[in-house]
Amino acid sequence: MDTLQLLASNRSFGGWHRRYQHESEVNGCTMTFAVFMPPQASENNRVPVLYWLSGLTCTDENFMQKAGAQRIAAELGIAIVAPDTSPRGEGVANDEGYDLGQGAGFYVNATQAPWDRHYRMYDYVTSELPALVEANFPVNTRRSISGHSMGGHGALVCALKNSDRYLSASAFSPISHPSQTSWGQKALTAYLGDNQEDWVDYDASLLFRKVKDTDARMPVLVSQGLADEFLQEQLQPEALQEAAKAVDYPVTLELHEHYDHSYYFIASFIEQHLRFHSRVLHPSQ
Amino acid sequence: MDTLQLLASNRSFGGWHRRYQHESEVNGCTMTFAVFMPPQASENNRVPVLYWLSGLTCTDENFMQKAGAQRIAAELGIAIVAPDTSPRGEGVANDEGYDLGQGAGFYVNATQAPWDRHYRMYDYVTSELPALVEANFPVNTRRSISGHSMGGHGALVCALKNSDRYLSASAFSPISHPSQTSWGQKALTAYLGDNQEDWVDYDASLLFRKVKDTDARMPVLVSQGLADEFLQEQLQPEALQEAAKAVDYPVTLELHEHYDHSYYFIASFIEQHLRFHSRVLHPSQ
Repeated sequence: MDTLQLLASNRSFGGWHRRYQHESEVNGCTMTFAVFMPPQASENNRVPVLYWLSGLTCTDENFMQKAGAQRIAAELGIAIVAPDTSPRGEGVANDEGYDLGQGAGFYVNATQAPWDRHYRMYDYVTSELPALVEANFPVNTRRSISGHSMGGHGALVCALKNSDRYLSASAFSPISHPSQTSWGQKALTAYLGDNQEDWVDYDASLLFRKVKDTDARMPVLVSQGLADEFLQEQLQPEALQEAAKAVDYPVTLELHEHYDHSYYFIASFIEQHLRFHSRVLHPSQ
Repeated sequence: MDTLQLLASNRSFGGWHRRYQHESEVNGCTMTFAVFMPPQASENNRVPVLYWLSGLTCTDENFMQKAGAQRIAAELGIAIVAPDTSPRGEGVANDEGYDLGQGAGFYVNATQAPWDRHYRMYDYVTSELPALVEANFPVNTRRSISGHSMGGHGALVCALKNSDRYLSASAFSPISHPSQTSWGQKALTAYLGDNQEDWVDYDASLLFRKVKDTDARMPVLVSQGLADEFLQEQLQPEALQEAAKAVDYPVTLELHEHYDHSYYFIASFIEQHLRFHSRVLHPSQ
């Protein structure tokens, strides 16, 4: 555990919420993440992990404080790991906008200066962080992934590119087709350059086109509020649904009247998402 | 409703979370509060109300975002009303410390300058706010009250002084004996002056001394984490328990190993508190 510095520890629903810092090799800076470890977890009973990717402006704290997920994770015996949404700190490139730079890593490996020096959130989330978690906590290698908004985009992209690493994926209000919407276009241009062919790997609706008949398919659940202030401009879940349908990928899109883009929406449906993931994370139950 | 200005509205667990501003007569300034209205509430089905009083530095938002109470309130058909923790704004007296002035009203009616001009949180919480809520929302007059830390103190004081207005009271980690602890001494001196006889009305452990054999008793539940960093210095729940026992008042004090002073503790036990209140708020169920 000497690679991990404990920042905070709170008893929660019989388990523990803890925040850690560590030196990230792939991002070349100090990264922060949070873990909820359910009461069932021990060396003799390693539990599966749900990775949660947060949205624009968030840190590791938003989901842990606001989603109300620990109650159900404690019941189901699932650990939750929530990374920060970008590299941070002095010397890490940033932008004045809330939608680029620190707090807005978009879960890509940047190729363009100045971002390419630290912004490798895709590798961080899919490889470095799981390896670190699996080496230091009583968890097994059964993983699912979920997220909100920018993090919903991240969860879908990570899952679609790694059907061998995740058992299920879900998203709340994801940026479903970033190459066609303004948040996504701004970020993908900055991080990857303006050749849109380089964006395909980070656009869930386009990634479905790459799925082959023989590829494994995992269950995917997407929840979207119909009063979401970003629905038409930024999210476009119908593009995701059409793309999935074209390749016969089992994406369930649920639309919820009156719900908006806030954590009140996430809190209202996180139980459903955790039970959805639990069915594949705990196949024998 | 023209006295209420709607600030925000979020669908939550089939009900609504809404924030309002209004001109408070007793505080002489604009006050903010939040309401969670469960899905059952209508003009033909007025629901009972749990008033929640937050702790130092909080606003109306902390509890609504972090406690996870809406899920259970939606199930039980209980409205929740969360006021701000003090008057605020330009022209409202303040202090540099986090534990006095704005964000730290201590739910008293101040008698000392400069606080006496706006700081009348006791009258606000027990009279003006319930009257406003009962005139403008589909609620009935069955009320309970709860809170955390400074708000736990507030809830116990409001309940003990108004056994005719509240059906039950509960508290998380309350400042149980403020006249003997430093947060309380600082605030009570500033707001009420240094004659400690004037503090008795705002110290739950001392208020029990005033309970007469013939007075009504409501059920009271207090939850306290044993890893709470403020337990010995500021909270002293054992003083409360002894005072209650002396007058045969039914206070249940539950101590929880490992839990601290944070919202992770509140979230872990808010379901128990809501079900406790529901038994008297919905006597027929």
